Amino acid sequence: MTKRIFNFSAGPAILPVDVLEEARDNMLSLGETGVGIMEHSHRGKAFIGVLAQAEADCRKLANIPDDYRVLFLQGGASSQFFMVPMNFLTSQETADYLITGSWSQKAVAQAKRFGNVHQAASSKDRNFSYIPKTAEYSSKAAYVHYTSNNTIFGTQWATEPEVPAGSTLICDASSDIYSRPIDVTKYGMIYAGAQKNLGPSGVTLVIIHNDLVKRGALDIPEMLQYRIHAENDSCYNTCPTFGIYFMGLVFKWILKQGGLEAMARANQEKADVLYQYLNTSPMFRPTADADSRSLMNVTFVTGQDELDARFIKAAQQAGFDGLKGHRSVGGMRASIYNAFPKTGCEELVKFMKDFENQNS
Amino acid sequence: MTKRIFNFSAGPAILPVDVLEEARDNMLSLGETGVGIMEHSHRGKAFIGVLAQAEADCRKLANIPDDYRVLFLQGGASSQFFMVPMNFLTSQETADYLITGSWSQKAVAQAKRFGNVHQAASSKDRNFSYIPKTAEYSSKAAYVHYTSNNTIFGTQWATEPEVPAGSTLICDASSDIYSRPIDVTKYGMIYAGAQKNLGPSGVTLVIIHNDLVKRGALDIPEMLQYRIHAENDSCYNTCPTFGIYFMGLVFKWILKQGGLEAMARANQEKADVLYQYLNTSPMFRPTADADSRSLMNVTFVTGQDELDARFIKAAQQAGFDGLKGHRSVGGMRASIYNAFPKTGCEELVKFMKDFENQNS
Repeated sequence: MTKRIFNFSAGPAILPVDVLEEARDNMLSLGETGVGIMEHSHRGKAFIGVLAQAEADCRKLANIPDDYRVLFLQGGASSQFFMVPMNFLTSQETADYLITGSWSQKAVAQAKRFGNVHQAASSKDRNFSYIPKTAEYSSKAAYVHYTSNNTIFGTQWATEPEVPAGSTLICDASSDIYSRPIDVTKYGMIYAGAQKNLGPSGVTLVIIHNDLVKRGALDIPEMLQYRIHAENDSCYNTCPTFGIYFMGLVFKWILKQGGLEAMARANQEKADVLYQYLNTSPMFRPTADADSRSLMNVTFVTGQDELDARFIKAAQQAGFDGLKGHRSVGGMRASIYNAFPKTGCEELVKFMKDFENQNS
Repeated sequence: MTKRIFNFSAGPAILPVDVLEEARDNMLSLGETGVGIMEHSHRGKAFIGVLAQAEADCRKLANIPDDYRVLFLQGGASSQFFMVPMNFLTSQETADYLITGSWSQKAVAQAKRFGNVHQAASSKDRNFSYIPKTAEYSSKAAYVHYTSNNTIFGTQWATEPEVPAGSTLICDASSDIYSRPIDVTKYGMIYAGAQKNLGPSGVTLVIIHNDLVKRGALDIPEMLQYRIHAENDSCYNTCPTFGIYFMGLVFKWILKQGGLEAMARANQEKADVLYQYLNTSPMFRPTADADSRSLMNVTFVTGQDELDARFIKAAQQAGFDGLKGHRSVGGMRASIYNAFPKTGCEELVKFMKDFENQNS
């Protein structure tokens, strides 16, 4: 088999080798069924078992209480950007958004189609290089929306924002879901595209409180109502069966690693390897404020575009893939999600040191 | 490896073994990239190549003219049911729908949210057991919508309905797409969930004329505008990369079989094996009118519920999976999409004959 390289892609991203191997081995026959995982009916016993197990393991990992529903939808976080306000915001109401990057801004743009948006906090003044420490919430927000990790700018909320009592907190956790423990009870809803920490693109995990399910709009297409997906256990229409299966394998893999506490420890260790080096490097420096740095996406620059480009090219040739930063920040980005191995961070630091020596 | 059984599932359904094997072999590394197919960035060179090749082969198979766009979306046909009227029907306008089964009816229910619906034809009077021979179109329909194959009722349009000149014909071809040649120029738009003839669930193929792309509503969320997906080559947000990859392999497989003409011949032969037997069987009979029978879903009954149930159970034990008919028709349904082998039809007939002998 071809040697796997270090894949720092921001998403779709690296997946656990054990899980890839298990999916591979069930491609032509799921267990002893004689029918491949993708070929099973979504209404059949085999797949219903897969779905139930995926939900059970998802719940176990984050101690999701019974009054929350776990849904497996399609359309990515980009569909949640409009489904959230379409369901929970009317033209008379205001929703509070915490603006920490491109994805928050995209979410705001969709919310404005349905009602009023109050930007309770923003770090746009310094190109989203930090997480705001204060926010001014409106008095009766329909909900408060934030993005827990900002893939592009390499920042991450250390914990949930402190919101007024009784607020409905909604989180786009696409890029750090299940990378650390999460207190679901603080949320009305958490959503995440799968393609960073949970599986292939094309499935969206939604964890949503029953009260919010009930609150959703009724005068919109069934496919856009959380209620309908909840009532039909994610099978109102044909669900993305392979993606759900794969996500289920990833949940099992996280459990085997020791759960979310273990993931958090491993992710901290991996990020430390990179940040500790970047903090002292004479050539590279991190772009995010020290107290706002993401454990998932480590963004850094040399300060010279030409040198950045040279570094990215050299790294690519040496087997470090996907290090080019997003065009809105420039420089480099090392995405080191759950499945990314610590050795990859160590090897990258070694490579950066060599590059530094050869180019100073 | 576990022996594969005959999978008559209506969808998700059987997929070509060659394609499953190729997907399996690229799970941990797409070619020599060292990165599995699901782990490649949707913006990276490798996946952009996969997407371009899938589109090229899709176009080649059906000679899709340059003034049509090929889009790979999410949400299944169920999302198209509302996206079509949301984009192309206003409250002042009327759309014509040809009603030939459950899916047509679901499409109508969504259209009614946005404008007026005229049922130009319906076969509901005889439980959708036939394709209507005539239709009464309204004078200025925004579009005419029909379902080319009716999975549940086992009927299929032999050719496109004859619509008034200048009509915009829109087709839900989910369950017979690329099972036979199709004259794309007769359509404004063709859409299909992948999970019957093209790949895993979670990807929707949309073939749409440029004029229709331009005509779409502007005051709706970007994710629901065909225009946006067309402008962004299906990558406005993270597309379902694995599903698109897999669909691309299926396109290649169809080309290798000889294209759509060859698929049509093979599908006709397979269906003939079943229908010719059913026409003469003293125990089983087809449920659809002779001139309306589907080459994809062969529905049949014994006329006795208890005997149907016994047959399904015995067939299951003998390795014929997924033969239970939909609850709205009862009896049996053998779904024999592109990837289903002729030997499976022959073996099933043998089994039915034996069952007949033992139970008469």
